[in-house]
Formats: sequence, structure tokens, C-alpha cells
Amino acid sequence: MADEFELIQTFFTTHGNREDVLLGVGDDAAILQPPPGRQLVMTLDTLISGVHFPEQTSPSDIAYKSIAVNLSDLAAVGARPEWLMLSLSLPDNNTEWLQAFSQSFMQTCERYGVQLIGGDTTRGELSVSVQATGSVEAGRAMRRDAARPGDAIVVTGPLGDAALALALLQRGEEAPASLLQRLNRPAPQVEFGQRAAEVCNCAIDISDGLLADLQHITDASECGAEIDLSAIPLSSAYRQCYQNNISVSNLTKALTGGDDYELCLCTSFEQLQRLTQIARSCGANCFTIGKITAESGIRCINENGQLVDIPVSGYKHF
Amino acid sequence: MADEFELIQTFFTTHGNREDVLLGVGDDAAILQPPPGRQLVMTLDTLISGVHFPEQTSPSDIAYKSIAVNLSDLAAVGARPEWLMLSLSLPDNNTEWLQAFSQSFMQTCERYGVQLIGGDTTRGELSVSVQATGSVEAGRAMRRDAARPGDAIVVTGPLGDAALALALLQRGEEAPASLLQRLNRPAPQVEFGQRAAEVCNCAIDISDGLLADLQHITDASECGAEIDLSAIPLSSAYRQCYQNNISVSNLTKALTGGDDYELCLCTSFEQLQRLTQIARSCGANCFTIGKITAESGIRCINENGQLVDIPVSGYKHF
Repeated sequence: MADEFELIQTFFTTHGNREDVLLGVGDDAAILQPPPGRQLVMTLDTLISGVHFPEQTSPSDIAYKSIAVNLSDLAAVGARPEWLMLSLSLPDNNTEWLQAFSQSFMQTCERYGVQLIGGDTTRGELSVSVQATGSVEAGRAMRRDAARPGDAIVVTGPLGDAALALALLQRGEEAPASLLQRLNRPAPQVEFGQRAAEVCNCAIDISDGLLADLQHITDASECGAEIDLSAIPLSSAYRQCYQNNISVSNLTKALTGGDDYELCLCTSFEQLQRLTQIARSCGANCFTIGKITAESGIRCINENGQLVDIPVSGYKHF
Repeated sequence: MADEFELIQTFFTTHGNREDVLLGVGDDAAILQPPPGRQLVMTLDTLISGVHFPEQTSPSDIAYKSIAVNLSDLAAVGARPEWLMLSLSLPDNNTEWLQAFSQSFMQTCERYGVQLIGGDTTRGELSVSVQATGSVEAGRAMRRDAARPGDAIVVTGPLGDAALALALLQRGEEAPASLLQRLNRPAPQVEFGQRAAEVCNCAIDISDGLLADLQHITDASECGAEIDLSAIPLSSAYRQCYQNNISVSNLTKALTGGDDYELCLCTSFEQLQRLTQIARSCGANCFTIGKITAESGIRCINENGQLVDIPVSGYKHF
């Protein structure tokens, strides 16, 4: 049976060749040349089997998603991804699983230009922690506390697909491929996040659900928000699952389900056009769904202009 | 029941106030000012209950040790610790446990001048991942691949105490307090590691066992080593547990047990005196236990000058 060193040697010795990685996988610690004149951005997210992904998720999807959720955090700040560290806990030494996992992990690294620089493997329940470091031009990071009353609230894509796919799986039903793709292969807004930081000060990634994440913004920025429910972008697969009957209760997944990893940004209406242009040039979308208010609290307004009471409850990991 | 946000808010909102932490716990990602003119050093280690520490270990000791093992990795490179990230997985929301854990975690951060900058909490089996970032003067990092034939091999303290304590606990016996202390509260050589890098190019921390870790050095440096068994430093508690009968078989814990987190350094005999002086000025020790050889393989020599066959088998996490 292979031991920890052989596992690392076999599967995770990186083939990356970034010049700023002076010492990568295999020593006590990695040594890195920080990008000159930039600030560092660091995030760490753990995915646990049965909590953050269904147990039947493929090793390839788990590897992809463990990177994607971290790159999404970097995108929310506007950072360029640089390096990753991986802590992998596995119940047994399953070579086939590890091979599929590591292949997908390395492919995803390559796709986003990041390099795996270290970490460890341990025996335990299936759990993947990825720590990602990125960088941002000094003073340019987007933050949760930078929303201002009057700002437009923008999201980058349809919401609720991942939560809907998960709910279908949990009910033992089949989920449409496009929804499953959104659950297992969320696309972090890496390029748009960086470009958006040129004109936008405030963003968050929607990992806990739109209302919960928006509340992080309004809490940190000491303001409130008004959401136009009819403007929430929904995929056609989402609509079809509800027979195109998008009542308020059928919006729940879109409003409180997390895991889509779209960005929610707040920017002045003057900058909105520029942000939309930037999105277009990145192949991303911008949907204006409401505005920041001086009055605290998040108010959801339906198509008839009526206030609708929706509890702000994001996905609770704990 | 408190949710993830409340947990973080309550227990891990850091009271650190490092000026280089521009945004700490609570946003999507932390934003940091890298230390000017220095290289970054990054490590990530996970401790799992029942694998890396006995299940009865106190939350306070778990918190301490999760930091110490990472600072030890930084020390092995000669880095100054800067920031930590924490991923904590807990089977249930045990407020008392969390309070004790977080208090010890914050105290340990303070003691070493590092700041917690982010991470996450999840529900799962008890597991603690700490990612540590340090910095080192450019080109000054100690590495595994820098040992040269003729170098003296030095260790910073008695070996085998932690492994012996663990073995006693696993047999249901009582372990002397000083051995337990070494298992649960290993002291990373943070100051000495940084100072040692002034005169030494090659080091590793002894986490997997002396012979296993020395083999990482000889493999990476393409050389071998000769160890004088009678020179292996042992604590008096260790000796007493064996009734002062230090036969080769009673040396096993010292040679192949890990978890003491002493450093093993290789340096020219010319620099040895300077290294010893530096150690003294830091309150650390230097024990010369052998030398690096051009011939590959690790040879253990007993007090009669005879070659003794000892299998190089470190602690296997997998």
C-alpha cells in the first residue's frame, strides 16, 4: 500500500512551471515570489462529502468544485488566482479514485493558470480543503462593506440551479443535465471578477444564497436593499422544472439556495453601463435585480410592486 | 443553534491588529500586504482526531498543536510566521468545546505574533486544517536538497518523547507529564529556525521520525548519512520509561517516531560552532548526531562502531 509520500509523489507532484514558485510540492513548505506591487488575497474552503456535495459525486467533479469554490471567492474580491494548496482526507487508499481526482485537479489548475504548491493527504472521511492565494492591484479589491445607497445590485447569472439540482437528487429524482452541471461544475467568474474591480468596489460570491449573501453586504455596508423579484435571472431548465410557474414560493431556490457561485456586485448606476460592457467582453452577464437603500433590511418586491415576505435563510453548513 | 456565520463571529473574529492585514476574518477572502523584499513560505497541515491526536485530547491542546505543527514547517525553512487560516470541521455545535478551542487558538496566535485571517467551519468528523504563511529573506530559505557530504547532522532536542507518550496512551498506561507535554504541546523552533537560516542551508522538521525525515533530506540532496546512535539525545523521562536501558530496540521511538517537531539541520563543520552559539542565544539546543556522506543510504552506528540495521519507517498517516 502506498504511503503518504508515495501518494503525493504519484499524484500531486505538479507539472506547473510558474516562475514565481521557487519551491513547490514536496518540501516542508512552498517558497514563493509574491507578485510585485500587488496585495495578496487568501481564501480557504472545505468541502465534505454528504455536506457540500452528494456522496455519489464523481472524484473528477469533487476536484473541480473544490477549486472552483475558492476561485469564486477570489473572483468576488477581484483577485487574479496564483497558487493553491490542497489538504485531502480519504477513507481509504483508492488508487482509481485518486487518479481521477488528481487528473481533474491538475486540469482545473491548468485551465485557470494556478499551480498546486503543497498540502497533505490524510486518512479520514472524504473531505477536501483547498487554500487559494491570489493577488490584486493595491487598493483595488472589491469588499463587502463598500455598497452605498443608490447603488445598483447586479448578479452575473441565473440563480437557484444548483440548489434545485440538489433538491431533486435528494428526493431521488433525476435532475436535468444542465442543472447538474451547475451543481457539480460551477463556473467561477474569474476573469469578470478581475475586470469588474476596475469599476466596482463591492462584490460577494453567491455561495450561501442570494438573500443571505446580500445580507452580508448590507450588514457590512450598514445599508439595506430592495430586490425586484421579477428581475431575478432564472435558467430555462429552472423554469421548466416549475412548469414555467414562477410563483414566489418557486423562487425560493433562486433566492436562498447557494452553490451557484455567481457574483453579486453593487455599483453606482453611472458605472453600470461600463460594468455591463466589461461583462460582455468577458462572456459574462449582468442582470440588475435591485438597488441598495439607506434603510436597513432586505425588501423583496413582486411584479405588482408589493412587498413580499421571504425569510433570509442561506445554506447552513453547521 | 448558532450557524456558521455566528460561530465565526463569536469565536474567531480575530483581535489581532497586524498592519499588513488589510481585511481579515469575515469577507470572502483576506487581503494582505506582503512583506517587502521577502519571499513567501506556505504550508498546510491537517490534524484528524484518532489519526494525528488521541481522541481524548483537549480542545485547547488540539488548537495549540494544529498551529505548532505548521509553525514547525515554517521553522524548518527558516521563515518568520505571519498569518494563519483555519478550516475546522466539528461533529456537532459544542459551544464549550469551541470556546476552549478558540481561546487556545487565539492565545497561540498571539504568542507567536501571527494573525488568523480567515477560513471556514463545517460539520463533519473532528478535523483541523491550518494553513500558515510566513516569509523569508530572498534566497535564505533552508531546503531539503541542500545537504552536502561532510556536513554535520544536528537535531535541536530529545527525540521520541511524543511517540513514547502516544504508545503508552494506546496501551492504556499512564504517560509521564513531561512526555504528554511533548505530545500535546510540541514547541516549534520558530526563533531558532529563523536565526539558523543565517548560517545553514538545509533543514527539515522531524514530524515523521528522524530516519524518515533524514531520508527526505538524503533523497533530495542525493547523498547519504551516518548516524551515531549513542549521540541521539533522549529526555530523562524517556530513559526512565526504559529503566535507563537504551538498547537499540529501545531507541525505536526516538529514531522512527514522529511528532516531536524538533529540527534536523545539516551544516558544514566550520559553521557548526556558529550554529551552536545561535542556538544558545535562542534558548535552543544543538546535538550533533552524525554526518552526511557521499554514499547513499542511512547507516546507524552503535557505540562499538558497528553497523546496526534499523528499518527507516516513519509515521504513516495513510
